[in-house]
Amino acid sequence: MKILCSKDILQTGVNTVQRAVSNKSTLPVLQGILLKAEKQTLTFCATDLEIGIRCEVAAEITEEGSTVVPAKLFSEIVRKLPDTIISLDLNDDVLIIKYFQAEISLKNYDPQEFPLLPDLDDARFFTLPTALLKNMIRQTAFACATEETRPIFTGVLLNIDGHTIKMVGTDTHRLAYRIAEIPNQDELQFNGLIPSKTLSEIYKLIRDEDEFVNINFSDSQISFQFGSINMISRLIDGQFPNYNQVIPKSCDTKIYVSVDSLLDSVERAALIARDNSYANIIRLAISNRILKINKVTEIGKINEKLDIKMEGKDTLISFNAKFLIDVLKIIDCEDIVMEFSGSFSPGIIRPLNDSNYLYLLLPVRAT
Amino acid sequence: MKILCSKDILQTGVNTVQRAVSNKSTLPVLQGILLKAEKQTLTFCATDLEIGIRCEVAAEITEEGSTVVPAKLFSEIVRKLPDTIISLDLNDDVLIIKYFQAEISLKNYDPQEFPLLPDLDDARFFTLPTALLKNMIRQTAFACATEETRPIFTGVLLNIDGHTIKMVGTDTHRLAYRIAEIPNQDELQFNGLIPSKTLSEIYKLIRDEDEFVNINFSDSQISFQFGSINMISRLIDGQFPNYNQVIPKSCDTKIYVSVDSLLDSVERAALIARDNSYANIIRLAISNRILKINKVTEIGKINEKLDIKMEGKDTLISFNAKFLIDVLKIIDCEDIVMEFSGSFSPGIIRPLNDSNYLYLLLPVRAT
Repeated sequence: MKILCSKDILQTGVNTVQRAVSNKSTLPVLQGILLKAEKQTLTFCATDLEIGIRCEVAAEITEEGSTVVPAKLFSEIVRKLPDTIISLDLNDDVLIIKYFQAEISLKNYDPQEFPLLPDLDDARFFTLPTALLKNMIRQTAFACATEETRPIFTGVLLNIDGHTIKMVGTDTHRLAYRIAEIPNQDELQFNGLIPSKTLSEIYKLIRDEDEFVNINFSDSQISFQFGSINMISRLIDGQFPNYNQVIPKSCDTKIYVSVDSLLDSVERAALIARDNSYANIIRLAISNRILKINKVTEIGKINEKLDIKMEGKDTLISFNAKFLIDVLKIIDCEDIVMEFSGSFSPGIIRPLNDSNYLYLLLPVRAT
Repeated sequence: MKILCSKDILQTGVNTVQRAVSNKSTLPVLQGILLKAEKQTLTFCATDLEIGIRCEVAAEITEEGSTVVPAKLFSEIVRKLPDTIISLDLNDDVLIIKYFQAEISLKNYDPQEFPLLPDLDDARFFTLPTALLKNMIRQTAFACATEETRPIFTGVLLNIDGHTIKMVGTDTHRLAYRIAEIPNQDELQFNGLIPSKTLSEIYKLIRDEDEFVNINFSDSQISFQFGSINMISRLIDGQFPNYNQVIPKSCDTKIYVSVDSLLDSVERAALIARDNSYANIIRLAISNRILKINKVTEIGKINEKLDIKMEGKDTLISFNAKFLIDVLKIIDCEDIVMEFSGSFSPGIIRPLNDSNYLYLLLPVRAT
């Protein structure tokens, strides 16, 4: 393998795939990045066996070949290389990096040991606008569980049915639901659970210049292709709960409130509420076109008051402040509608005048 | 105590003094910030008994008084307050913070328990331009020891004698020396060891708008006053070593090299050298107007070559790469002069054409 390329090209490739490099794998080669030089393309690959990322860049290749560089060291070296043309030259298992009058030799892994990123068998294919995909990820993935005890709650449900695409994330305490219309000429159907980690990596890697994302899926895997990047991920096995059942169809109380004001008040109340023994619980008291948030703990007390529009009955309901803050931070709207049916039924939050998003939040018993 | 002031004012005061708040004090009141309202001035004070910071801001005070707020909680609350006029009202040991229709009550500490920041007895006084003080700190404090086993090496020597000011920092492996001329009409004399932590806090707090820093000192303490801030620190007890003795007066080899090129080469070599068993040591081989840095370790090898100007003998000398990188990052000059006298005598680094700075670095035995 003999390659000439700019420092920038190396940096782009390494930065892109490095997110998939395994930190603590029992298979040492997974701590590496596969470099493959073929025709005039240099391909970077990394995988932790859950996610695989591939990135292709143009390079001047005078001899084809492949090797696996130690990811961390190679990326640090690339960052410190001078801004010039770099030569990479593989000599048995040693990669020689040349620049100006200097050179670095690195012991590499055997590329034969590097697991192939799986191909999707029987893949079906559709395309989404980048902006839509990013927004759907941002509005749903945060609601997933982070602990791995029940794997199905660590993924976001992606459902495509005719011209409708839905994404749903839940950790069983709250549920985030986003729907959109898409052109779908082939009338594709898909229903699969994508790990939320996969989605956050995609969210970080997609640049705004990438107008569209091509999505391929089989029954067990999904891949996302945008710009020069291809990312493949397993799907999570299991049956996602029937979330439609838990979304209330009616309510006793409906309020209209400014997102920014509510976020500020809840964040302040959370500072007082987060005292360990109080589990970050805050109570909303809705009455007389006023929303009050009160909390008394060992460290102090807070009384917040917000003017609201309201319909229906007065009510009292307690929530985990974090779960309320999470959703208020991702709503793209000045005002929201909140719906309640007493202290023990879930609360519903929607952007005003936008039926494409819904957040359901279970109440907690106030202390 | 009754005060009206803007959120900004509170934020400035809290952010400034918070650096001196103790994290792990056995005296709970030291985890607080003293607020003192007197005349039309609100004063913020914090101390960990090593350093004390005081910051004065203008506020509308309708009732004088003082209290000690819990620093962490109060600062988080201030950050989340709306951008409006805030009222602070002390009621026994409870501080009531009011804004818009809302209020927060915080249990406070007793201000009687808060230690007074000591006054300097017999203080002598001089003034330094801010830019000079910041530069002297930046070029010397990094060379101090961080572990507390030998306290005198955790401080920077400040020496004033006639019109000359000197700062010297050393951890016994390397020594950074900076000298400057100052107007000193009173012919003040001072020789004291300032904790490097004090100096880094000052470095972070001084803004470029503060043109001058007023320095007061006694035999055991020093204070720095700039803008609305006053910072006081103990001096370190003990006898600083006679550094003049260790600075070589002559050399066998003198080289002239570009700071940026040398820094890049040493940083790359350090990546290969940092393998545990090699203790980050790199070797400089100087010969024939070329400086070579070579390193072979388990993970790979590097050969760096730099064109240099040189006078005197060829030489070979090994250093801890980190100590070389540290100084190359703070030199304000394109080129440096390095002086050597064989493999076992200290190396000297100076900016080219600037006799006000000197860095001495002990060699290590190469492996």
